[in-house]
Formats: sequence, C-alpha cells, structure tokens
Amino acid sequence: MNNDDGDRVPTAAVLIIGDEILSGRTRDSNLQTIALKLEERGIRLREVRVVPDLEAEIAAAVNALRRRYTYVFTTGGIGPTHDDITAAAIAVAVGKPLTRHPEAWQRMSAHYARIGVPFNEVRARMAHTPEGATLIDNPVSIAPGFIIDNVLVLAGVPEIMKAMLESALPHLVGGAPMLSRTVLCGLPEGTIAAGLAAVENAHPGVKIGSYPSWTRRDGFEVALVLRSIDAAALEQAATTLRTLIRDLGGTERLVGDT
Amino acid sequence: MNNDDGDRVPTAAVLIIGDEILSGRTRDSNLQTIALKLEERGIRLREVRVVPDLEAEIAAAVNALRRRYTYVFTTGGIGPTHDDITAAAIAVAVGKPLTRHPEAWQRMSAHYARIGVPFNEVRARMAHTPEGATLIDNPVSIAPGFIIDNVLVLAGVPEIMKAMLESALPHLVGGAPMLSRTVLCGLPEGTIAAGLAAVENAHPGVKIGSYPSWTRRDGFEVALVLRSIDAAALEQAATTLRTLIRDLGGTERLVGDT
Repeated sequence: MNNDDGDRVPTAAVLIIGDEILSGRTRDSNLQTIALKLEERGIRLREVRVVPDLEAEIAAAVNALRRRYTYVFTTGGIGPTHDDITAAAIAVAVGKPLTRHPEAWQRMSAHYARIGVPFNEVRARMAHTPEGATLIDNPVSIAPGFIIDNVLVLAGVPEIMKAMLESALPHLVGGAPMLSRTVLCGLPEGTIAAGLAAVENAHPGVKIGSYPSWTRRDGFEVALVLRSIDAAALEQAATTLRTLIRDLGGTERLVGDT
Repeated sequence: MNNDDGDRVPTAAVLIIGDEILSGRTRDSNLQTIALKLEERGIRLREVRVVPDLEAEIAAAVNALRRRYTYVFTTGGIGPTHDDITAAAIAVAVGKPLTRHPEAWQRMSAHYARIGVPFNEVRARMAHTPEGATLIDNPVSIAPGFIIDNVLVLAGVPEIMKAMLESALPHLVGGAPMLSRTVLCGLPEGTIAAGLAAVENAHPGVKIGSYPSWTRRDGFEVALVLRSIDAAALEQAATTLRTLIRDLGGTERLVGDT
C-alpha cells in the first residue's frame, strides 16, 4: 500500500463515528466511497478507525490520526440529535471553542424559512463548528460539514456524505494517482505464491495483492491486483505475471484497468 | 454504546488487515458479521481499525487494542502469498517466535494428501503461528486460524471468516446480551430531538440512536434505535418514545425487536 511511493504523496485516514456501525445495525458504505475517490485524487488512505458516539473516544482518535496523516476525514454525528456530538468532540481535539458559524447560520436560517420549518434550538446545533472552521457545502440538506486544520468533517448519511466529499475534494492537495491492473487467475494461491513474490520483487514500485474468492457462477478464482503510480512498470509487471500463470498451466485474464 | 453497562461486560475490537479495503477495491463485510455475533454473545464491540499489509502497522495496532479490550479479532492476511503477513506480525506484537504448529501441520498435510495437492513451502506457511497459539478450526479450507493471548486471528475471505468465528465463539466469555427496539418515525430529527434527549435521560441504562434515511419507496424516515441490557427498561423507554412521537403529531411503528 505505501512502500511504493514513500513520502511524496499525501496520506489520509478515515474516522467513522457511530454506535450503529459497532452494533452491526448498519453496514458502512462510506469508507469505500471515500477510498475510491482518494485513489483517483492521488491521496493514499492509510488507516481507518470506527469509534462509538463518545466525546473522549472521538477526540482521542482525531488527535492520533491528524498528527500522523495529511488529511483526516470523519463521517457521522453531525445531525441535530443528542447523539450527534462530532463537532463538539472535534472542538475539544483541536483545542478551539465550539461557536456559531455565521455563514452556516445564515444558510440554514434561510433554508428553513424557505421550506417553512422552524429553525429551532436543536437544528441550530448544526450551525456550530470549532472556531475558525471553513464550511463544506451540503447541496442535499444544507446543514454544512466543515474543515478545521487538516480534519474534514462529513455527514454519515451516504447521500449527504458523497455530496460533501465532492464539495471538498477540489480543495485538497493530491499526488500521482494510483494505477491498477487486475489479473484473474484460475490457479490456487498455493501454486502461484512463490512466482508471485518473485514478480513483485522484480518490479520495484509495483505492489501485488492476492485475493481468493469463490462464486457459484465462476467457482474458485484468485484476483491478483497490481498497483503502482508508474504506468510502464505496472504494464511490465502485469505482462510478466500473465506469462507466469500461463507457464504454470493456468488460465488468466486481465480486468479492471484504471 | 458503552455508558450503559460499565465494566461488567467483556469488550472487543476488530482489526481489519488489508490493502484491498484501504484502496476501495473491496467493501468489507466481515465487520458487520462479527458485530452482530458479538451483540448476541454479550461482548461489546468498542473499536475497529483498518491497517495496510505492513508488519509494523499490524503489530502496533494489535498491541494498542489488546491492552485495552477483552478480545481483539483480526481478519485477513493468513493465506499463503507474500502479502499474507498477519501471523508474523502478531508474533512480533506478542513477543513470541513464529513456529510450525504441530497440529496445524498435521491437519494441513493430511488435507493436501487427501486432495492430491502438493503441501509445498508456501502452503506450509499457513501452519505457522506464534508459539503457544491455540488453533481455530476452519471447516471450509482446513488451514486454521488461531488464538494467542486475547487475540483471535481469522481469515479475510468472508465464508472462511464466518466458519472460524463460529468455531471460536463458544470459547469466549460473554456477558448480558444487548437488546434493542427500533421505532420508525415519520417526523424529522429536528422536530423530535429535544424530546428524544429527554426520553434517554428519563430511562437510565437505555441508549437511543437516531438514524435518518431516505428511500425511493418510503421517502424520509428516522430509525430510532433503543438499546439496553435491561428488557423492562427498554420496553418502558420504547413506549414513552412512541407516545412522544404521536403527541408531536407523527406516525411511528415498532420494528426490529431482538
């Protein structure tokens, strides 16, 4: 994942905030959405954590991650209910007071006036950010996310999270996009493992992952995923790997180019 | 999540090991499987981390988590290929040598002899564990997982992970199972938030989460999830909450009893 491009590329962590993930009630989908967008943008996702809706846990995780990675993306906990404590927890983490954000307040009061819904005390909680935060637009339901230092605070509802991520991405510094090739292989891992390691060693800057699976339709199959920021090296490694599989008597096909 | 039963209940963390999750190639499904099983078993899942296939990262995360929680479940990285480094990383974390496990070796050599496949050097890697580990049965593909101290090492392939989890669960110490009720509510969060907080405060030992969603079929809806180990308190809180929603002019229905 990260032995191929050293310190040249910005890094990121995702912090998923929510009891509903830890209880198994909800299967998270935001992580994959963020991961794929960061790959395109040339930002390497290096760590993910899931923590409960507890201020001390959220603040501790934010501080551990923001010191280590270029960006930290949080998801969840920015709605109007009592279990939405992300903004307060991040204010604690960054050591700034939680204050009413004038622009957020303005957008939200105008929105609720327009739709004829009271802009009450609990909705007003969503206009509070740590002091000095920059807003992240929310074209879906108006109440914004925000950026404070290197921490990007996004919603947990997938439709809103996606919209906020699209709003925020152009403002981030990216690096060389990660490229990948996937070779599907009909031989078992135990047969190709030695050759696979040799192919990786022979192509510096290319990392190879091996992912076995079984499907009713296709039976047993191994997906060999080659990743590099160097298109030529990637191509050469894929060709070497395909030759290896055929030499071992296996079938192979190339899929999933990016 | 964890302000309701203090220190009486065993806790757990999940460590997902795999570049394929961080790159977005694969959407993890093991976390939800483990989370739901732990709820039933009365073990509270308190934290999750995802780390890349790097020994130092895996070892550091295992050590941070195993000191803090009753159990740590790892998934991924125990196959035969060069990117399968979990057993070695956990040996480093627990300070024990990685050695050939006699029982694992015997099971695997018998299995490969039976199916007529060479038990070669790379397959033999899967018979290695940190010294003193106890095996976790793998009825799907034989190569076992293992338990060392309070760390349970499971496969990443979902079918195999599930089988190993079933093998391991009876050996763990559980506590009072978490019970839940879900009330679906037609009012927006901003309308019910104040009352919701009051209901939670009035029912100690019951925690309420609020999860808005939109679907094409049902439109806007908020799932209010009440959780407690106390069945009577849970019932009372659910009744109070349903009355609150009706008093505010909303529709509600009870679903998802466990």
